[in-house]
Amino acid sequence: MKRGFCYLLLACCLTMCWNVVAAQKKAGPYVLVIHGGAGTILKKNMSPEMEEAYKASLKRALEKGYGVLKNGGSSLDAVEATVRVLEDDSLFNAGKGAVFTHEGRNEMDAAIMNGKTRAAGAVAGVTVIKNPISAARAVMEKSEHVMMIGPGAEKFAKEAGLEIVDPSYFRTESRWKSLQKALKEDSLASARSNAYTNPGKLGIINKDNKFGTVGAVALDKQGNLAAATSTGGMTNKKYGRVGDSPVIGAGTYANNNTVAVSCTGWGEYYIRNVVAYDLSALMEYKGLSVQDAGKTVIKKVGDMGGDGGLIALDKNGNMAMPFNTEGMYRGTVTKDGKMEVLIYK
Amino acid sequence: MKRGFCYLLLACCLTMCWNVVAAQKKAGPYVLVIHGGAGTILKKNMSPEMEEAYKASLKRALEKGYGVLKNGGSSLDAVEATVRVLEDDSLFNAGKGAVFTHEGRNEMDAAIMNGKTRAAGAVAGVTVIKNPISAARAVMEKSEHVMMIGPGAEKFAKEAGLEIVDPSYFRTESRWKSLQKALKEDSLASARSNAYTNPGKLGIINKDNKFGTVGAVALDKQGNLAAATSTGGMTNKKYGRVGDSPVIGAGTYANNNTVAVSCTGWGEYYIRNVVAYDLSALMEYKGLSVQDAGKTVIKKVGDMGGDGGLIALDKNGNMAMPFNTEGMYRGTVTKDGKMEVLIYK
Repeated sequence: MKRGFCYLLLACCLTMCWNVVAAQKKAGPYVLVIHGGAGTILKKNMSPEMEEAYKASLKRALEKGYGVLKNGGSSLDAVEATVRVLEDDSLFNAGKGAVFTHEGRNEMDAAIMNGKTRAAGAVAGVTVIKNPISAARAVMEKSEHVMMIGPGAEKFAKEAGLEIVDPSYFRTESRWKSLQKALKEDSLASARSNAYTNPGKLGIINKDNKFGTVGAVALDKQGNLAAATSTGGMTNKKYGRVGDSPVIGAGTYANNNTVAVSCTGWGEYYIRNVVAYDLSALMEYKGLSVQDAGKTVIKKVGDMGGDGGLIALDKNGNMAMPFNTEGMYRGTVTKDGKMEVLIYK
Repeated sequence: MKRGFCYLLLACCLTMCWNVVAAQKKAGPYVLVIHGGAGTILKKNMSPEMEEAYKASLKRALEKGYGVLKNGGSSLDAVEATVRVLEDDSLFNAGKGAVFTHEGRNEMDAAIMNGKTRAAGAVAGVTVIKNPISAARAVMEKSEHVMMIGPGAEKFAKEAGLEIVDPSYFRTESRWKSLQKALKEDSLASARSNAYTNPGKLGIINKDNKFGTVGAVALDKQGNLAAATSTGGMTNKKYGRVGDSPVIGAGTYANNNTVAVSCTGWGEYYIRNVVAYDLSALMEYKGLSVQDAGKTVIKKVGDMGGDGGLIALDKNGNMAMPFNTEGMYRGTVTKDGKMEVLIYK
């Protein structure tokens, strides 16, 4: 009897050890890539203090998301947590610090996608949800829908228990000044042409009005990919304009079989080129690497006259961060745990 | 001098004849394909009068668009004109006759895309624009943007000179009754579960609440493709829900190098599968025919649990109209000018 018990104990121990080894073997590499927007970001225009501030913010976001992954959390939790840090940081054009519309409001868009299930959620034109990325996740997980817009999306976020703030929360002095500058350039341009009164083409006078979106893509220990993007859109935007960020397939896409993608740039060109899904399709249908697929889609955007960048992470942890602008705020934590933040070309 | 004049006249005549022949040679086949929504459309549930009414409406729309193509008009003009006929017809869930939201409003979405330039325009959540498809076209042609939502989109449409109507214009008794039925089923479901108060998943109780979108794809004599889609969304929709119709790449896509596509069905699955662009990518990257690519993408939607259909037309005038529902209102005018309208499998 005693001997039988010993054998049983031994068997149990062996099984446990085996399971632990198996679990360690199963846990794959975990990787996080983020961006804080692309644009005309030149070293000569940046003070050392400002550069340090951006780098510190990017690191803070990376540490948050990487902590989630390290502790065995999901890529979905990691990208949401990372983007929330960037939304709460007034340096970036998402959440607090979002740019102003023509009417002096902050209207934000966000999207999230789960590579495992290809479930997705997005909100557009929201003005009182503190963290739009969490609203996008609530749409994905707590509704049958993928996309909600305007006051309806805000009502849903309230009912889902998300933090609601006064619109003044998002206001920063520097973004307000950017709007005043854009409005001034706008009225000068209107004086030169009667395009607006006709109405003709809406002018994008300051090309850099349209940048500053934030995003994250992650691969977790379980091999699941996720992508998240959040933005305030473009300074001085009118008429309820929505860019690519909340458009699944354009600014945001994730699929465990291929890649997770988050884009930043001149949104109209990203929508017309269905950039995020095109990158995935080039990998799936043409066998391109994530780097070659990334280069190809950014070239397509450029050939059409658009600019911007993107971050992409494939199922094996390979990453790409192509852009055709002067710079892109970006950061990575690679498979070996090495953290890096970059700004310029 | 007289003889010289005769030679000149002869040369002119020959040049003219040559030009006419060249133009005739250059003018390619022109084709139009339309849909009026997919769903549980069964012959046993349809009165002969109702069936006749649907067929007559589809024919009217086809004649309108085909007339444009025949007279040398652009595919863009043809799809817009065709969709306007379907929007003005109260039988279809777009424009007049759009379904009601949970709050008893008609909130419409539409998108259009030019295959030649890959320019695109879309509006979502609009309530006072008589023809949302024309608003989508105005966004494409009269702004720098691709997507506008809500009151901003309406302001733009007004400034662009489009016809604005009182929201009551869109109301039809049968759609109102559908909402009352859905609301009753909703409250019965709420009594059974507390899903709504938590809030949990939004229930799609009546699966057929989500169908009835209209769309058109066309190839003109110049070889240019275009696609247009317009919808009232789903009966009893809440929280500013937006489906696939106004999402470029999901419900609407056109590219002269490949195909023009307009989708109808359970929008969430079409967004998550980026259906319209996936069809194009399968043709471009994998060399699939429009029929095989169409079948493939509808199978993907079905495998995920979604249903619906689509119309697709390639650059050579080959078409596909796959669907995995009981029926889809659809019609074609083929290269030889033959008109056909179909409803069931």
